[in-house]
Parts: sequence; C-alpha cells; structure tokens
Amino acid sequence: MADPSELGIAALTAAFTKGSLDPVAATESCLARIAAQDAHLRSFITVAAEGARREAERSRRRWAAGTPLGPLDGVPLAVKDNIDAAGLPCTAGTAAFATHMPAADAPVVACLRRAGAVLLGKLNMHEGALGATTDNAVYGRCMNPLKPGYTPGGSSGGSAAAVAARLCAAALGTDTMGSVRVPAAYCGVYGFKPTNGAIATDGVVPLSTTLDCVGPLARSAADLAVVARALLVDMPRTFIAMPAHDTLAGVRVGVPRQLEEIDLCVAVGAGFAGVLDRLRAAGAIVVPVDLPAWQPGPARRAGLLVCEAEAADYYGARLGPGLAGVSDTFASMLRYAERAGLSRVVAAYRTIEQVRAACFRAFAAVDALVLPTTPQPSFPHGAAAPASQADCTALANFARAPAVSLPIAADPLPVGVQLMAAPGDDLRLLALASLVDRAVEPLRAAAATRSEADASP
Amino acid sequence: MADPSELGIAALTAAFTKGSLDPVAATESCLARIAAQDAHLRSFITVAAEGARREAERSRRRWAAGTPLGPLDGVPLAVKDNIDAAGLPCTAGTAAFATHMPAADAPVVACLRRAGAVLLGKLNMHEGALGATTDNAVYGRCMNPLKPGYTPGGSSGGSAAAVAARLCAAALGTDTMGSVRVPAAYCGVYGFKPTNGAIATDGVVPLSTTLDCVGPLARSAADLAVVARALLVDMPRTFIAMPAHDTLAGVRVGVPRQLEEIDLCVAVGAGFAGVLDRLRAAGAIVVPVDLPAWQPGPARRAGLLVCEAEAADYYGARLGPGLAGVSDTFASMLRYAERAGLSRVVAAYRTIEQVRAACFRAFAAVDALVLPTTPQPSFPHGAAAPASQADCTALANFARAPAVSLPIAADPLPVGVQLMAAPGDDLRLLALASLVDRAVEPLRAAAATRSEADASP
Repeated sequence: MADPSELGIAALTAAFTKGSLDPVAATESCLARIAAQDAHLRSFITVAAEGARREAERSRRRWAAGTPLGPLDGVPLAVKDNIDAAGLPCTAGTAAFATHMPAADAPVVACLRRAGAVLLGKLNMHEGALGATTDNAVYGRCMNPLKPGYTPGGSSGGSAAAVAARLCAAALGTDTMGSVRVPAAYCGVYGFKPTNGAIATDGVVPLSTTLDCVGPLARSAADLAVVARALLVDMPRTFIAMPAHDTLAGVRVGVPRQLEEIDLCVAVGAGFAGVLDRLRAAGAIVVPVDLPAWQPGPARRAGLLVCEAEAADYYGARLGPGLAGVSDTFASMLRYAERAGLSRVVAAYRTIEQVRAACFRAFAAVDALVLPTTPQPSFPHGAAAPASQADCTALANFARAPAVSLPIAADPLPVGVQLMAAPGDDLRLLALASLVDRAVEPLRAAAATRSEADASP
Repeated sequence: MADPSELGIAALTAAFTKGSLDPVAATESCLARIAAQDAHLRSFITVAAEGARREAERSRRRWAAGTPLGPLDGVPLAVKDNIDAAGLPCTAGTAAFATHMPAADAPVVACLRRAGAVLLGKLNMHEGALGATTDNAVYGRCMNPLKPGYTPGGSSGGSAAAVAARLCAAALGTDTMGSVRVPAAYCGVYGFKPTNGAIATDGVVPLSTTLDCVGPLARSAADLAVVARALLVDMPRTFIAMPAHDTLAGVRVGVPRQLEEIDLCVAVGAGFAGVLDRLRAAGAIVVPVDLPAWQPGPARRAGLLVCEAEAADYYGARLGPGLAGVSDTFASMLRYAERAGLSRVVAAYRTIEQVRAACFRAFAAVDALVLPTTPQPSFPHGAAAPASQADCTALANFARAPAVSLPIAADPLPVGVQLMAAPGDDLRLLALASLVDRAVEPLRAAAATRSEADASP
C-alpha cells in the first residue's frame, strides 16, 4: 500500500476502519517524513514526537476496540505556532516568545484532541503572523514543497507547506487578512476561513482581535470540511437548519467588479476565467457584483493599519515599549500606528466597516462571491513580496464572512480560487465548495497533462 | 370614525382600501395634530407640510385608481433629523448643521418614497445622536407624551415621541447603542434595530460608522414589521429562504447571566420576570446563557469611547479643530478620545469584538436572547441621566445583531423588553417578535386594569 503519510483524512479513516492501517503506523510515517524532509522545508518549529506517539497509541486501542471517537480519531495533524497547545512552546514565530510555554490547550486544540486527533507539533509562520512569506529569521526560512527556493506564502506558511509535503494530513492556521488562504493557494492545498467568531480564537496569540480567525488547511475539499465541521461547534441554530445546495445549477455566483483594480498575473487571470467557464458549464449563474466601498489597495492598507494598531497594543503590553525580542521589521510595523495617529486608525476601522456592509448587501443578489485567492503564485524567497498578496483574501476578513480557497491548477505553480458566503453560512459554503471543486477538476487535469507534456522529451 | 391620526399602518391601509379614508385626510389629520401638540412636545425640528400634502395627493390618486404601491402608500411617516431628505435641513440635532441642506434623499428615505409613504418632516434628537434624553438646547426639550416633564429618551427621542403621540403612524430613528430602542421603551412603542449593514446608513450623519444602524419605530409589532420589511431590501438570499417560527412552542430563548450585573429598577425587574413567565406559558424554553465577554458597564464605556473617537473624526473634518457650533458638552465628548489615546481606543474595539464573538456563539444554544430594553423607565428632564440607560441595548450593536423592543406594561410609565437574534436573522426575528408580543399582551392588559383601579375614586 501507499506510504500512509500520503493518505488524506478520509483515506486514513477508511484504512483504520478496515484494519489495513493503524494510527500508530500513520503517525510514525508522518514523523519519519518530517525527519527526512523538514530540515530542508522548515515547516515545523516544534515536533512533538513523544506526545504524538502516546496519542496515536491511545487512538489505536480505540480503533481496535471498535470505539473510535469519529472521523479525526488517529489522524496526524499539526497547528500553527501561535495556537496554544499545553506543554509545547508557543512562539508566534518571534524570538520574543521563544520560551513561552502555555499551560492549557486553546479551545480549538482541545476540540481536536477530544476528536482523537494526533498532534504532531507546532508549525512555522511569519513572525507575529504579520507578513506572507514565512521567511522566518529565527525559526527558519520555510520552503514551498512544490518549488525549491520559493515561499510557501504566509503567515501560515508552515501549515500549508507541511500539508502539501504530506508531513501531516491537515493543519490549523490563522487568517487575519488571508494567512490561511494565501499559503493554501501558493502550496496547492485547500484552506478555510470561518465567519469571525464561529471558531474560537481564545488561546491564540492575536494579530488583530477584530479580524483574526482560526481555520484548517487540507489536501481535499472533503478533508477540509471534516476538520472545519469539527471546529464549527458553535454555529447559530438558525444556520444549522438551512439545507445545503446539492447542485451548482441555478446557484448565483458573483464576481466583484472591483477585481479590475487588482493586477492579476496571467496564470491567475487565465485560471480564474477557466473557473467561471466551468461554473457556467455546471449551470451556475455568474453575475457581476458591485462592491463600491471596496477599493482593494486602500482597504488592504486600512486592514494593515488596524493589524498594526491592535498588535502594538498586545505586544507593547507584554514586551514593554522597547519591544524586546522582536525583529526590527516587526517592531517598526508595531510602532507605525502610533505614528499614524488616532484619526487615521479610526478611518481605517470605518473603511473596513463600509466594506463589511457592502459585502453583506451583495449577498442579496448572489449565494456566493468568487474571486482569485491571490493575484500571483508563489515567488522566490528574497524577492520583494508583492504588495497585493492579500488584496483578494482580506475581503472576507473585512466582511466577517466565511471563505474557502481551492487549488485550480499548478502549471507550473499552483493558483487558487476563493469562494465567499454570507457571514454565518459556513456549513453551506463548505458544501458548495465541494461542488465547485468537482466542477473545476478538469482544469487541474488539463494543467497536469500540459505539465507532463512540457516535461516529456 | 376615529381621528385618522389614531390609526396605525394596517388600519390606514385598510381604510384606504375600503375608501372610508384617503391619504390626504390622513395627512391633514397628522398635520393638525402636529400643529396642536408639537409646540409643547417638540418632537419635530422641521415640518414639511407642503411636501407632505403633495405626496398625499399623489397617493390619493393612486388609491383612487386602484394602483397603490403597497402597504406604505399614503402612510404619514417622519424621519429623525440625522437622515437626509432632499430639500429639508438635516441638523443632526446640532446648531453646527442648522443650515445644512442635503440635495438628495438617503437611500432609506428614497425607499420609503418609492413605497408611497408621505414624509411629514424631520424629528428632534439628542445633539449628534450622542445622548439619550433629547433635551435639545437648540431645537427644543422634547417631551415624553405619556408624562409631562419627562424625557422621551434618545437619541431618537423625537421619533418615539411623535409615534407615541400619534403625530405620525411610524418613524425612522438611528440606533448606535440603543437610540431607537431606548426611546421606544420610554414612550411605550415598538422599535427595531437591524443587523448592521442590512439597512443602508448612507446619507445619515454618522455617530459611529462601525455601530450605527437605521431602524423604524411604530405602535404595533405588525406595523413595525411592515416598515422594517420595506427597508430590508438587501437581505442575503440565504436568510430569506429560512422559514419563520409560527409558534413559541419549542423556541429556545436565552437570558444572559450578565443581566445580574445591571441594576434593574423594580418595575423593569417585575415586568421582565412576567415576560419570562408568559414565554414559558407559551411553550418557549427559557434558558440561562453565559456571555463571559460581556461586562455591561465596561462594554458600554468601550462603545462610548468608539463613538467619541469615530464622531470626532467626522465632526473634526467638517467643523475644524474648534468644533464651531456644537455644544460644550458634545465638544468635550468629541475631544475625549484623543485625550484617552490610541491604545485605549484600540482596546475598546477589542472589547466590542469579544462581545460580538460571544453573542454569535450564544446563538448555537438559543434562537433568541431576551433582555429588558432599559434598566429603568423614563425620568424627569433635568434629572441626571442614569449611566446604565443603554447597557442592555448596546449589546445588539456590539453583536451586529438584529433586535426588537416591545412595550410590556405602562404602570405608571412604560417598560420595554428586547429580543435579539443572530446577525442576518432579521426577518425571522420580526416574526418571532409578533408571537412574543401576543404572548405578553395579558401583561399589558393587567397593567392597564391596575392603572384604571388606581385612578378610580
């Protein structure tokens, strides 16, 4: 059989059920792969091998006794290093917190443990979650597993790299302006950002408490939904009662006109056009949507200023005015809001609220919005990061809305497409994303064929 | 027949349909009542008699031709004076804007006009919408129609007073921390605050763009719903598809434990207990709900600081640093945030976000939250305003959630109860409020009987 680390959540659970594989073997396979590859990939900050082996053994016994806890029992997962797990360091990717050792699990980690998941360790990230290259001077330059020397994106770059490289079956990241979805797109995996508040952010080192979310990354839409559903334990009753779409026929999908203001690279533009064609072919009604309050560049800068102001408040209170232990780059961002002044920060909150209200109203006309995940694919470490990396993703954070990023092609580098739904509509969005994923499958197949053709002599 | 100004929306439309009354007569009846009473009540800042007569005449012709525009055609309404109506001053209750004359209708006003409503004029309010007595030094001390010398509440005090005194069939107010629902409770009428963004706030002089909402006030739950539905033109499709409750049996209603931290006066406490009894009698399941992030006092102060910071940004940009034309009290509030500093303002936004997330998750266990509208009834003008006036109402603004205030008794002064639902669940909340209104009717009847007994010799 295949190397167990190649298996996704559904395949692992099927093998556990059949008895052809047990959680200990699955975990050992991932640990071996981490040992073999991660010195180069630098996707982990802490590997919790002993804890993982203990948890895997307990899970093995539950499966053997025929009493597994559910679809995550025995599944090897890892979480971004700004999410508390009891007894493991939680660095938030900064030297300032290198020795910070939380005593308790964050609720999301507790939730995964209750579901029987095996925690392999803590994943690399951009310092303080404020940046999207995961070129971390303290914990390592995390690599994109799909192309040597390239960034996995960020800030949850370690989460995307580990999932893409099969070091874990799925992972948790955090997403403040796109930090789950950007690296998912760059690494060719799936990422989910929930409605703000739908998944608890307690026990997470904050970047911006008003924009932060926790969300999973996985290698298929189905696996993504399994982890997401395990974490969406507090959805309002009114949303749970709603029936999901079971076909794309008649589903109304909106394309924001304001995408015109974002410079999409050729591969992203072509991939996105292909997605719209596939959606139409599947019977979806694709319509333009106007979000007049959303000017992608200014909105992103407003979001960044809010992140800087809120993060300054958090780090300043813990590290003092000298911000001891954080890099000069991060410190200078943390100091920016105070220099910008109250009036500009207040204007930034206002901008975000206007975008939120415009998005809310847009869902009067459409069931979902569709847009590229990033305007460009991954780029080499050391190159200047494009300012527009999070332009398309930050919209969902401003809107407090759920969003899923799907890989649509990898020719030569992966590109992602994003679906957004109204705040609270997380469960229906996950179901819709599966339908869209099936509809765009031919795009991925065509890209794979082209890649093979290019590689042939 | 009764004085037409006594009629609510449903009764007016019924009379127009029968032909026993026409919109011109209805409008003239309201204008006569304004002329007779408003020199004392001071609920209007501008009466638009000529415009109203023209609109009423056009509506009369539509009804005569059998082509009315819907359930608001010919209905005499008025709007708070911080909402733009073309060709009428829009003062926001401050001398600074006494001569401000907008050229265009706010979208909400345009929406009412398209529905055929007759705009009687613009209503008095607390200066800048920042305060809850409507004791306006420039435009008049607005009176509570139910008790001489008492406040109607605020900041939409003129809206509530005019509706309660039958000067108009319904009115629009704005609600940033409770400014629709507080005066609705004090004046014994109904008030609705939508999900933030569900009703457009463009063309409204902002207090806090992150918390402001526009909402209607009316004299019955049915009338409230008619105006609300006319304005909720942009609800996400997903919410429109959901079936409403048609009975209270089995509906789960949550009572926040944190109400214990608010000093409820005896009449409010007793009225609220009575409501819970009636809900249980109707088959609802009343359960305690914990909102650990909500500390009513600190949360209200955080909301106030955000209002001050955001309003300072708006007024400062228009009036200059001297804030020419606003009262000393208002100016001192507008200057407070700059003195408090960026860090405290950022902490206030964080507090509000934590309350929002806690409320969102609370709806996992309940269909609605129930709480008193205000901790106390109206009080005499000139007395110190209780600091806690908006403690119970601000929760819905922080939560971005829809809320309805219903009058539950008036013995001797009105008291209100509030229902809140998950953000986006506005239409179902309005239907639920009608069911609750019917269930609490015996409380109002009993209070009326007691009042009569007290008044008998």
